[in-house]
This record gives sequence, C-alpha cells and structure tokens, in this order.
Amino acid sequence: MFYILRENNVKKTEFIELDSNEICVGFLTVEELNQSFDSLGIKKKTFLDCMYDQTHLRTSIDTYDDFSFGIINIVYVMDVHKPKDRVAFIIKKNLFLLVKLVDEDNSCKDMIENAVGRLTQKQTLGKVVSGVFESLLLNGNKPLEITERKILNMEQQLVNGRISEHLNRDIFNLRKDLSILKNYYEQLFNIGEELQENQNNLFEEDDLRYFRIFTVKSERLSNNTQLLSENLIHLREALDASLNYSLNKTMQFFTVVTTIFLPLTLIVGWYGMNFTNMPELTWKYGYVTVIIVCMIVVGICLYLFKRKKYF
Amino acid sequence: MFYILRENNVKKTEFIELDSNEICVGFLTVEELNQSFDSLGIKKKTFLDCMYDQTHLRTSIDTYDDFSFGIINIVYVMDVHKPKDRVAFIIKKNLFLLVKLVDEDNSCKDMIENAVGRLTQKQTLGKVVSGVFESLLLNGNKPLEITERKILNMEQQLVNGRISEHLNRDIFNLRKDLSILKNYYEQLFNIGEELQENQNNLFEEDDLRYFRIFTVKSERLSNNTQLLSENLIHLREALDASLNYSLNKTMQFFTVVTTIFLPLTLIVGWYGMNFTNMPELTWKYGYVTVIIVCMIVVGICLYLFKRKKYF
Amino acid sequence: MFYILRENNVKKTEFIELDSNEICVGFLTVEELNQSFDSLGIKKKTFLDCMYDQTHLRTSIDTYDDFSFGIINIVYVMDVHKPKDRVAFIIKKNLFLLVKLVDEDNSCKDMIENAVGRLTQKQTLGKVVSGVFESLLLNGNKPLEITERKILNMEQQLVNGRISEHLNRDIFNLRKDLSILKNYYEQLFNIGEELQENQNNLFEEDDLRYFRIFTVKSERLSNNTQLLSENLIHLREALDASLNYSLNKTMQFFTVVTTIFLPLTLIVGWYGMNFTNMPELTWKYGYVTVIIVCMIVVGICLYLFKRKKYF
Amino acid sequence: MFYILRENNVKKTEFIELDSNEICVGFLTVEELNQSFDSLGIKKKTFLDCMYDQTHLRTSIDTYDDFSFGIINIVYVMDVHKPKDRVAFIIKKNLFLLVKLVDEDNSCKDMIENAVGRLTQKQTLGKVVSGVFESLLLNGNKPLEITERKILNMEQQLVNGRISEHLNRDIFNLRKDLSILKNYYEQLFNIGEELQENQNNLFEEDDLRYFRIFTVKSERLSNNTQLLSENLIHLREALDASLNYSLNKTMQFFTVVTTIFLPLTLIVGWYGMNFTNMPELTWKYGYVTVIIVCMIVVGICLYLFKRKKYF
Amino acid sequence: MFYILRENNVKKTEFIELDSNEICVGFLTVEELNQSFDSLGIKKKTFLDCMYDQTHLRTSIDTYDDFSFGIINIVYVMDVHKPKDRVAFIIKKNLFLLVKLVDEDNSCKDMIENAVGRLTQKQTLGKVVSGVFESLLLNGNKPLEITERKILNMEQQLVNGRISEHLNRDIFNLRKDLSILKNYYEQLFNIGEELQENQNNLFEEDDLRYFRIFTVKSERLSNNTQLLSENLIHLREALDASLNYSLNKTMQFFTVVTTIFLPLTLIVGWYGMNFTNMPELTWKYGYVTVIIVCMIVVGICLYLFKRKKYF
Ligand SMILES: [Mg+2]
Ligand SMILES: [Mg+2]
Ligand SMILES: [Mg+2]
Ligand SMILES: [Mg+2]
Ligand SMILES: [Mg+2]
Ligand SMILES: [Mg+2]
Ligand SMILES: [Mg+2]
Ligand SMILES: [Mg+2]
Ligand SMILES: [Mg+2]
Ligand SMILES: [Mg+2]
Ligand SMILES: [Mg+2]
Ligand SMILES: [Mg+2]
Ligand SMILES: [Mg+2]
Ligand SMILES: [Mg+2]
Ligand SMILES: [Mg+2]
Ligand SMILES: [Mg+2]
Ligand SMILES: [Mg+2]
Ligand SMILES: [Mg+2]
Ligand SMILES: [Mg+2]
Ligand SMILES: [Mg+2]
Ligand SMILES: [Mg+2]
Ligand SMILES: [Mg+2]
Ligand SMILES: [Mg+2]
Ligand SMILES: [Mg+2]
Ligand SMILES: [Mg+2]
Ligand SMILES: [Mg+2]
Ligand SMILES: [Mg+2]
Ligand SMILES: [Mg+2]
Ligand SMILES: [Mg+2]
Ligand SMILES: [Mg+2]
Ligand SMILES: [Mg+2]
Repeated sequence: MFYILRENNVKKTEFIELDSNEICVGFLTVEELNQSFDSLGIKKKTFLDCMYDQTHLRTSIDTYDDFSFGIINIVYVMDVHKPKDRVAFIIKKNLFLLVKLVDEDNSCKDMIENAVGRLTQKQTLGKVVSGVFESLLLNGNKPLEITERKILNMEQQLVNGRISEHLNRDIFNLRKDLSILKNYYEQLFNIGEELQENQNNLFEEDDLRYFRIFTVKSERLSNNTQLLSENLIHLREALDASLNYSLNKTMQFFTVVTTIFLPLTLIVGWYGMNFTNMPELTWKYGYVTVIIVCMIVVGICLYLFKRKKYF
Repeated sequence: MFYILRENNVKKTEFIELDSNEICVGFLTVEELNQSFDSLGIKKKTFLDCMYDQTHLRTSIDTYDDFSFGIINIVYVMDVHKPKDRVAFIIKKNLFLLVKLVDEDNSCKDMIENAVGRLTQKQTLGKVVSGVFESLLLNGNKPLEITERKILNMEQQLVNGRISEHLNRDIFNLRKDLSILKNYYEQLFNIGEELQENQNNLFEEDDLRYFRIFTVKSERLSNNTQLLSENLIHLREALDASLNYSLNKTMQFFTVVTTIFLPLTLIVGWYGMNFTNMPELTWKYGYVTVIIVCMIVVGICLYLFKRKKYF
Repeated sequence: MFYILRENNVKKTEFIELDSNEICVGFLTVEELNQSFDSLGIKKKTFLDCMYDQTHLRTSIDTYDDFSFGIINIVYVMDVHKPKDRVAFIIKKNLFLLVKLVDEDNSCKDMIENAVGRLTQKQTLGKVVSGVFESLLLNGNKPLEITERKILNMEQQLVNGRISEHLNRDIFNLRKDLSILKNYYEQLFNIGEELQENQNNLFEEDDLRYFRIFTVKSERLSNNTQLLSENLIHLREALDASLNYSLNKTMQFFTVVTTIFLPLTLIVGWYGMNFTNMPELTWKYGYVTVIIVCMIVVGICLYLFKRKKYF
Repeated sequence: MFYILRENNVKKTEFIELDSNEICVGFLTVEELNQSFDSLGIKKKTFLDCMYDQTHLRTSIDTYDDFSFGIINIVYVMDVHKPKDRVAFIIKKNLFLLVKLVDEDNSCKDMIENAVGRLTQKQTLGKVVSGVFESLLLNGNKPLEITERKILNMEQQLVNGRISEHLNRDIFNLRKDLSILKNYYEQLFNIGEELQENQNNLFEEDDLRYFRIFTVKSERLSNNTQLLSENLIHLREALDASLNYSLNKTMQFFTVVTTIFLPLTLIVGWYGMNFTNMPELTWKYGYVTVIIVCMIVVGICLYLFKRKKYF
Repeated sequence: MFYILRENNVKKTEFIELDSNEICVGFLTVEELNQSFDSLGIKKKTFLDCMYDQTHLRTSIDTYDDFSFGIINIVYVMDVHKPKDRVAFIIKKNLFLLVKLVDEDNSCKDMIENAVGRLTQKQTLGKVVSGVFESLLLNGNKPLEITERKILNMEQQLVNGRISEHLNRDIFNLRKDLSILKNYYEQLFNIGEELQENQNNLFEEDDLRYFRIFTVKSERLSNNTQLLSENLIHLREALDASLNYSLNKTMQFFTVVTTIFLPLTLIVGWYGMNFTNMPELTWKYGYVTVIIVCMIVVGICLYLFKRKKYF
C-alpha cells in the first residue's frame, strides 16, 4: 500500500509512479517489493539485503549516496517479550518505503497507518520520516511507570521482611526487561542521530530538528529506563544484605539453642552411666544437685549470649 | 496571574497584552491557559501538549523555532517523597509563561512569586528565566548535609558493631533518595544546557552566562549527591563484610562448642550401654578414668582450636 | 598469489609488477614476501616487523607516510577457542598485501579468495580493502544468537530451581567467550576508524564511507556482545541470590529440626539417669507425663517457628 | 592584611588603594571585608555571597564579567578529618583577595603568607593566583604514600590469614578518606580549568599555562588517589573471598566431626535401651562387636570425607 | 655520558658544548647535572626540581616555554615488584637529557645505550626522544601473555573443583600487578600525548607521528592489560559462586545426616528411660518394633530429602 501525501489529503493507492513533487510513503510486503523495486528505482542489491540478514539482533541504518537503508526490530514496549516485528525502511528522495519482514499479527500496518494519518498538509520527507519514527516512542513512559510501581511494591515486601525466592526472580526478570527496553531506545537514538547527520542530504536542513526531538526523546526514555535499572540494583543489594542478615540471625539462634542443650545433655548422659561405684548416684542430694547445676549452666549460657548480643 | 516587569516595579495583572518592550512572566492554571493561549500567541497544539503526556517521569525541554516548551517535575529536595509538582513552561520573545499542571499545596505559586520578587530593574528574558530556574536549586546543599550526617551516624553504628536489619534498610532508602535527587539535578542540568545553546535565539548572547551558572550549580549538586551515594556503597560493602565476619565467628564458636561436647557425649553414652560383660563398669578405677579421659579430650580440643585461632 | 583487479575480470598470477592503473591484492606467505618485498617496494624494516612481534595479543595498525601496516588476529566467531590465525596486511598505493603469519588449516586463503571473488568491476583500493575487512564480520550475529539461546536456557534452569555448579561454570565460560568476541570487534572497530581517518591519503575521499559502514557494523556487533554480557551479569547475580536463599532455607529447616529434638533428647536423657531417689521414675503417671510434656514441647516449638515464618 | 607586590619586595599594609600598576594580594576576615569592600570596588552583593551559602559542601567558582568569585573548602591532606577551612576568593584586575570564612587554627594565614613569600619579582596576577592555588597541592603525594604503605600492610595481614573485623573497618575508613581526597582534587581541577578558560580575561594569555600546570597536577593527584582506591576494592574482594573460604572450611570440618559422632552416639544409645529381651546385651561377644562396628563406622566416614576432599 | 648524534656515527663524550646543528643525548647522574646544568643552559630551578619531589608516585611531564621537564618511574614489566627506577628528562632544542635519580642496578644506562645504539643517520630530536620512550614498551606483551597463561591455569583449577585459599590470593596478586602495569602504560600514554601536542614547538611537525605511534602502542598495551584484568574479575566471581555452591552442598549434606540421626537418637534415648511402668520395654515384640520404627524413620527422611533434591 502506498500513501501519496497531497497538499490537502492522503491518497491511498496500490501502485505509484515516483514524482518529484509529491512525497510518497509505502508499506509493502517482501513479495510486493520483489515485484516493484525496479520501478521504484531501488537496486536489486538493496532488495536482497532485506532478505539476507534476517537475524533479530540487527537494528541498523546504513547511509548510502542517494538513499538510506535500515532495519528496525520493533519492541512492543508494553510487553517486551511479545515477538518483535521486523521492518526494513528505505529512504529516498520523495519516498519513504517500509517493508514488512516479520509481523505475525500485522500490528505494523496499524502503527504506520496511524502515523501517516496524523500527518496533515505541507509535508516534507523529514516530517514524514520523523513522524513515523516518533510513533515508536508513543506511550514509552507507561511501561516505565508500571515497572516503577512494581519496584515500589517489591521494596515494600523487602521492608516488611517478606523475603522470598520470588523476589529474586522478579528482580531478575524486571532487569532483563529494562535491559531490552534500554537497548531498544539506544538503537532508536542511534538511528535518530544518523538521520540527523543527513550525510546524503535527503532531508532539508530545516527538518533536521524533528530528528533532534526524536533523538532527545529516545535518550530521555533510555535514561529513565536506566534509572529504574539502578533502583533494581539497589533493591538486589538490599535483598542480598537481608538474606545475609537473616542467615546470621538463624545461625545465632541455632548456636544459642545448641550451646544451652549440649552441656545439659552431657550431664544427664553422665549420670546415665552404669559404673558400679558412682557415689553421686546414691548420694541423698545427688538428684537435687544435678537439677541445680543444670539451672546454673542455663543461666550462665543465657548471660553470656546476652552479653554477646546474640538475642 | 501575570507579572509585567517594568523598569522600576513589577506590575501584577490578570490579563496582559504582549508588548515588545516589556517582559512578562505569567503563572497560569491549565484552565486559564485554555482561555488565553490564543491571545498570547500560543498555538493550540502547544496547549494540548501541556495536557497530553501527564506522566510524572517526563522532565523535558523541546526547542521550536520561535519558542521553547518544557515540563519540570519539581522535586522538593528537603523531602523527595513529597508529591512532585508538575509545571510546564513556555518561553517566547518577551514572555515566560509557567503553567501549573499538578500542585496540590500550591507551593509553586509561592516559589515563583519569590523568584519574581527577587528580580529588580533592567530585566532581560534571560535573567528572568534563569532567576526562576535558579530558585529550584536554592537550599540544594541542605538535604545533602543532612544525609551526610545520617551516613556518619550509620558508620558509627557499624564501627560499634551494632549491625541491624535497620541499617540495611536505611542504606537502601538513602540511596534511593539520593538517586532521585541526582536524577533531578541531572535533568535540570540538561534543561540548563539546552537553554544555554539558545538555538532559537530567544535570549541575548550576554545573558547566556546566567544559564551557564545555573548549569554549573546543577552539576555541582549532582556531583555532591554522587559523592554521598558512593559513601553509601562503601558503607554497604563494609556492612556486607561485617555480616560475613559475624557469621564466620558464630560458626567457629559453634564448631568449638559442638566438637568439645560430641566426644564427651559419646563417652558417657558408651558407659550407659547395658552389656552384661563390660569390665570397665565394675573396675575399681573405671569412673575416675572416665573423668580423666573426658578432661584430656577437652584439653586436646581446646589446644587444637587455639592453634587454629578459632577463639 | 596475487589477484590483479582488471575492469572485467580478476587475473590470478604468481608474480606481479606494480602498475599505477591496476589494483592488486596479494596473499603471500612470509617466505614469499621475503623473496619479493623488494620488487613490491616494501622496505626491509617493514618485512622484519612481520616477523618480529609474533605475540598473539597484538592486533594493530600503524600508519606511515606512504603505507599502512597492521596485524590482525582473526577470531573465528563461531568457535572463539579455535586457534587464532594471524595475518599481516600492508596497504600501499594500488596494493593490498596480506601476509599469512600463522594459519594451520589455511582458512585465511579461502576467506580472502571469497572476499576477492565478491569484488566486481570498477574497483578502488578503498572498496577492496573494506571488502576484505567486512568479510571478517560475516555471520557475526550467529554466535550471538546461539549464546542468547544458551542464556535463555540457563535462565529457565534457574527459574526452575535447578541450581548446579554447572550453571556457574557455564556463566563463566560464556562471559569469557563474549569478552573475547567483544575485544575482537573493538579492535576491528579501531582499525576501521584508523583507516577511515586516511592520514596518508591512500584512499579516495569517496571511499571512506565504506570504512564507515565497516566501523558501524563492528560497533553494532560489539554492542550486541556487550548486551549479552550484561544479561550474564544479571544471571550471575540471580544465581548468587538463589544460592544465598537456598542456604537460608536449608539452615532454617535445620534449625527447626534441631530445636525440636534437642529438648526431647534432654528429657529422655534426664529419665535415663541412674539416681536412686528420682521420685518421677516410680510415680504412677510418670511415663504418661513425660509423653505429654514431650508433645507440649513439640507444639510450642512448631508454634514459635510458625510465627517466625521458618517454614 | 594586604601584600603589595612591588618589583623588588613585598610590602605589607593594612589598607590599600588599588593602583593599576601594582598587584595586590589581600587576606581579610569577613569583618574586614565588610568595612572595605566598597573601597576595593567590590559590590555589596558579592560580599553578601561570602556570608550566604556557608555550607561546607560548596567548593565553587563563578565567573562574572569583571571578576571571579569562588569558595574553597581546604582539605588538610595529611589529615582529611581535620575541620576544613573555608576561604572565599575574589579575583579582579590587579587584586587577588582571600577572605577567611572559617578557620579555627588560623592555618590559612600561614599558608597564604608562605605562598606570597615564595613570589619574587616581575609578578603577574596569573602567577600570583596560580602560586597560591598550587600551595594547596604541596605535599599531595605524601598522604598517598602513607596510605599505600597501610594498604601493603593490610595485604600482608590478609596473606598471612589474619582476618579480623579490624581489617574490614580499616578498608572502609581508608576508602572514605581517599574518596574525600579524590573529590578535593577534582574540585581543584575544576577551579583550575575554569581559571584556565579565562572567560573574563583577567589573566594574560601567557600566564594561562601556570593554571594548566596546576590543572595537570590536580588531575595527577586525583588519578593516584583513584589507583589506591581501586587497590582497596581488590583488597575488599579478596577479604570477602577469604571470609567465604574460611566459612566453607569451618563448616566442612564441623560436618566431618558431627557425621563421625552421630552414628556412634546412636549405637551407644541403642544398647542403652532397657528392653528386657535384647539378645545382643547378653551375647558373649556383644560388647566386642559394638567396639568393632564403631571402628568400622569411623573408618568409612573418614574414607568418604577423604574422597570428598573435606580435609 | 653524552652521545652526539653525527650523520654517520654516534660520538660518546663526557662533556659537550651545545651546537645548533647536532643533536645530543645525555645520561647524567644528579651530581653530574649539578656541575654542568649551567653550561647546558638549564636553569637552577629546573635542576632543583629533579631533587625536590622524590616520591615514587610522580610520573609527570611539565611543558615550559623552551623546554619540557618530566620524571618517569620505570616499571620493569617482567617483574612489576622490582624497585622502580626514577629518571628525569629534560628536552630542549637539540638536547635530550636524562638524569638518573634512583637506579640501584644501573639498568637505565643499558636501556638508554641500547635505544641510542638503535638510532642511525639523519636523526631529529623527535626521532631520538620517541626512540628512547618506545624502548620502554619493548616486550610489553610478554608479561601479559605469561599472565594470560596463569589465568588459564587458574580457570582449569576452578573447573576441576580444586578451590583453595591459594586461588583467592593468586587472583588478588595478579590483579594488583595488572593494576600497576595498566597505570604505568596510562602514564606513558599521557606523556606521549603531551609530547604529541608539541606546545613549545620543540619537535618538527613531521616527527609528531612517532609520538602518535608511541601513544597508540601504550594504549594498546593498556587495553590488553585491562582485558586480562576483566578476566580476573570474572574468575573471582566464578570462585565466589563456587564457594557459595560448595557451602550450600556441605550444609545440605549436613542437614540430611543430622535429620536422619536426630529422631533415631530420640527413640533409643526414649527406651533408655528408667520409668518402672513402661509396658513397651517388657512387651514381647518391643525390641523388634523399635527396629522397624527406626527403619521407617530413615526411609521417610531419605524419601523427603530425595524429593527436596538435597542429594
Ligand atoms: Mg544493567
Ligand atoms: Mg542495557
Ligand atoms: Mg545497552
Ligand atoms: Mg550504545
Ligand atoms: Mg540518569
Ligand atoms: Mg550500584
Ligand atoms: Mg550487585
Ligand atoms: Mg545510584
Ligand atoms: Mg541518576
Ligand atoms: Mg542523564
Ligand atoms: Mg564526582
Ligand atoms: Mg564500589
Ligand atoms: Mg556489595
Ligand atoms: Mg565483561
Ligand atoms: Mg578492551
Ligand atoms: Mg573487552
Ligand atoms: Mg548497547
Ligand atoms: Mg557481579
Ligand atoms: Mg553476593
Ligand atoms: Mg569520588
Ligand atoms: Mg570510590
Ligand atoms: Mg568526585
Ligand atoms: Mg567531577
Ligand atoms: Mg588516567
Ligand atoms: Mg589511573
Ligand atoms: Mg566491589
Ligand atoms: Mg575492579
Ligand atoms: Mg564480592
Ligand atoms: Mg584496575
Ligand atoms: Mg589505572
Ligand atoms: Mg578498547
């Protein structure tokens, strides 16, 4: 589908002829590009590049003499684990072509139609391209605010002493998600910077500030993501210290309990021996003395541990 | 409310007419802006931007051709958890407009009136804008000094061996607060740098140094915050090591106690066995020998642990 | 072997005469260079440099007045522990000479023949050199994707609670591999930047963008490597916390068990004492009372540990 | 007190009249400044600034049109915990004014007199200012060398296995001291850089290199401090690992001891049971068999732990 | 000793007269400099600087109007703990003077004679100075390769489960050595950069690239050092995790053993009680039942721990 940006309206059409006066936005599948790249003035090599390096790690932009070619892996910021859509883009004089490489739920099409729909009269290539890219940043702060609330919630759990393996996994998963988001915004930032440099003079000097605003917005989102990520580092360290503290407390309690019972158990074992000549066993006050000795042992233990601040 | 900066006085008025000779500072609610943006020469789109992205994560400044538009989330540095006020600002030739987006206790109004009050004769737009922004940095060092004293206090606790779960939570909370402060100063620093660049030439060249002083002050506060944050990292690491050391000591003590009692308990259990032909039980010196053996066992244990430096 | 890049074909030859109109790519062994460096206009000192610093740590490029000389340690990205091949390169006007220093399986030759084979008509020195260098980045994302899958797999293990010493070693080994990869891409990035600076004007201004694309690609691969490396750091920290949590749980369980049995063992030891006058032993309800006391002790212990959330 | 730098001597005087030919260094108390700021051509506002922001966190320099105003918190590098002196400075054409804000032991006066004393003929403002500032860096390496020796000493303790809570606190305190030093040198570095920029043209172009040397020296001291700080990080990590290792060893020893005694204690308890029909008790070889069984149990335990490398 | 670099040979002499046509390299002791600094056109102050700041922390270069003065602390890279030699250098038009400050084994002299010996005809000051400095980087990769092999060896130990306190200390010592090396190369890098800036125009523009090559080589060595240092960080973290894992395993084993024996010990203690009316003791199947109960207890414990994956 092509969108020809006329002065007053946007004309949708299946096929176009490039014209030096009107700016055209296209959204094609790979098959459609295969049929029309020639008529669009796109070299076969560029077309093949779309097909070649299909890896989802590659978000990129390469600037050539008379066009720019790039690939974006679109992260759905509200759910970073949703499969990433891959879209290639070709920017030529008067043409902004997007090629759907991977998109199972056709969400790209909606996004692009929305972005084009927001464009009104007196369009320039720069406005169109920056407009589509900026639609990727829409709602960027929402997942960050949700994450912020989650982190606050986790902090509450920690402060209340509810340490669970769950907390560890939540920290791990949130950091991973933020890492994906941060990387995504950094890559958009890089693309924005590259477009802003305008090395092949596709855009008018005046329009470069739109890319600047895009770049600044990406950086801001990246910084906000980073800030949350640092909060999680602090949370992890506090969790670590809590676990260490808890282990200390457990072992101190355990030591107290054992140290009290060990001498008592020795004493009662002692008088369980079957030697024939143990005078204490038949001594009138033997039993009473053992009771008193046990009490003294417990008393001394408690006093010593109290002084050592074990409880 | 508008403040018209005349040569000798500041005139307060509810409605203004922009005039190329006098500089005007306005502080409006969103509703007031809604009624007057047209007469102030502000585009509807800019007005809508004030309303649109209400998220508290967005501190920003965007520079357009003939005006700059930004949003500040004001952190109250004396209590970073107090709800942040949100204020939008629009800077045009001769006009510095502040729009109250969120402010439950109306604290912004006071701040701005104070800042305007401090302005005297021969004002320029640059002096006015930098004056208002600089009022955000007032007293910036006070919370840092309070935090510094808190950290010193916590260090004292650690050195005195009073390790408590409290200390862990205090470190965590202080770091979080410093993180919020640092981010706030960095954002103000960024706004200051953007204004200093003066890309739309709203300010006179001569006035840019006021923004420079603002920028340097923000950076200084950010650096001081960072320094305290690093102190907390060191404190956490020392706390970690203290906990580890304490666990070591506990377990060594425990090992000593158990290792002394285990053989003794075995011995007394041994002679508690009911075998009919245990010659030791009826041997004349049986009981005395067991007492001596027990003493020797204790002696050997103590000697070995002494050599291992377990206590 | 030399490859002379003619307008329509690539001529292979064993010996060449440098000619100002044709670009020549050579791939020699050290022995071959020894025989021909004079006729190629290469100084003896440069030849000796190839021989001298054989250490595998040295990936470098030095820019001299009329030539550039460098050494690359080629990491085979699909298996970073495969022995690195070492190749020296000399770039002169019209000549790109590669010298095989170390290469047991002769894999370099294939790589270079492939790279030269991909070159077609209208070659410039810049295109040739950047073409060969770019062949080092081919398939760079594949090992990263494999590593990504491995990390996902390890995360799954952690989430499922299957903590093993294996996991620790896997994290360690993967991080080491990524560290090697990252360093390799950074070194290629540095070489690319040096060539892009073109200080000795070996390349035409127009061709420098090919080095720019090479540089950007290296940086992208380096960044992707870095991102995976950070994921591993997070995984390690989650593993650490899991181990700490597991130790806590083990010790709490242990403390519960011991604390329940210690008083019971004391009680039964107590009534195993052989004192002649222990009234409880002959008391009618003695045995029953001990049973009940034991039950109460167990009940109190369980209640206390329940309240302490030990299980 | 003022020091007028004449060609051949330094004249001390209580009151001066500024003169365009002679450079004057003044060292005043706040009260003295209060009386003379007018005659020195210093604005009331600048004077009030000296009084206003008394916080010890503020080391700063602000550059105005015809003067520079700054505040230094002087760290006594030989003892960073000695109370910091605060000195304000005002640099005007021909005048370098230092104002004592806080200085209980009057150490500043000595420092400044020494610095002025070292100045000889043909002074320029730049030489004077840089001379006074450089006196702050005097002996900067001495505390670093002392710290280095302390660290070496602590390393020795660690290597000899003398792990104590003392070591933890020493690391913590040294890092804190180095952190204070590093921050101090960084702030001096920043002041040096600001003076070097010479934005208000107070200094002659030729004299700027003196500030450059000051800047480089500050940076060098800051880097040396940083290096020691990193050594302490490594020491802390080694201490951590030592504590972990020691805990491991303790618990392994403990496990060996317990595991050997537990079955023995069970066996002897077993034959302490009072069942009427326990054939072993009256069996001729019962006692001997138990002795042999116990020995076998000990043997098996020792063998298993040996294989597990527990000791 | 002075070396006068003539067109065809190097003349050694004890005393020189500076001559604008010939370049002279001198290597003097402090005493020799004391006698000749006047005739060499070196100011007394510069001479005293050599003597003054003797601290071994100071590697520096200060650039003055007509000469550069610096001090190098030479780290012997093959053994970083060998006492550092200190050499001052003065670079003037046509003169490169090295002054031996500290050198017990006279190793500097050899190094400089070697460096001068390698210089041949058509010398410039730049070539001479860079030649001597580059001799400091000779063999720089050798200690790094040795360290790399050591690290590989330590990794092998870790993978084989041979965790020892030795490993911790080796990591600590290697990191310290690498830290010293890295700092040394960074300081040489800084000196190289300063010489490359050529602020006092001592060197010809053409010769600056020799300093560039020196700078790049220092940086490369510094980067390689850094890479090894990072490997050690990974190794330390893996060692930490191994220790944690080992502690977990020990405690789980211990818990299993204790939990099995505790109930058994209680049971046998129970029937060791001397109550007169314990029906079980005289019951025909009492003993057999206890045996069976004990077996069941062991069975249940083993089953539960199996399910908890404790072994
Ligand atoms: Mg991260
Ligand atoms: Mg990231
Ligand atoms: Mg990243
Ligand atoms: Mg990046
Ligand atoms: Mg940030
Ligand atoms: Mg951190
Ligand atoms: Mg951490
Ligand atoms: Mg932080
Ligand atoms: Mg921050
Ligand atoms: Mg930032
Ligand atoms: Mg800082
Ligand atoms: Mg740290
Ligand atoms: Mg930590
Ligand atoms: Mg790494
Ligand atoms: Mg590196
Ligand atoms: Mg690296
Ligand atoms: Mg990245
Ligand atoms: Mg880590
Ligand atoms: Mg940890
Ligand atoms: Mg610091
Ligand atoms: Mg630090
Ligand atoms: Mg600092
Ligand atoms: Mg700083
Ligand atoms: Mg450095
Ligand atoms: Mg350093
Ligand atoms: Mg650390
Ligand atoms: Mg480190
Ligand atoms: Mg650690
Ligand atoms: Mg280091
Ligand atoms: Mg360093
Ligand atoms: Mg690098």
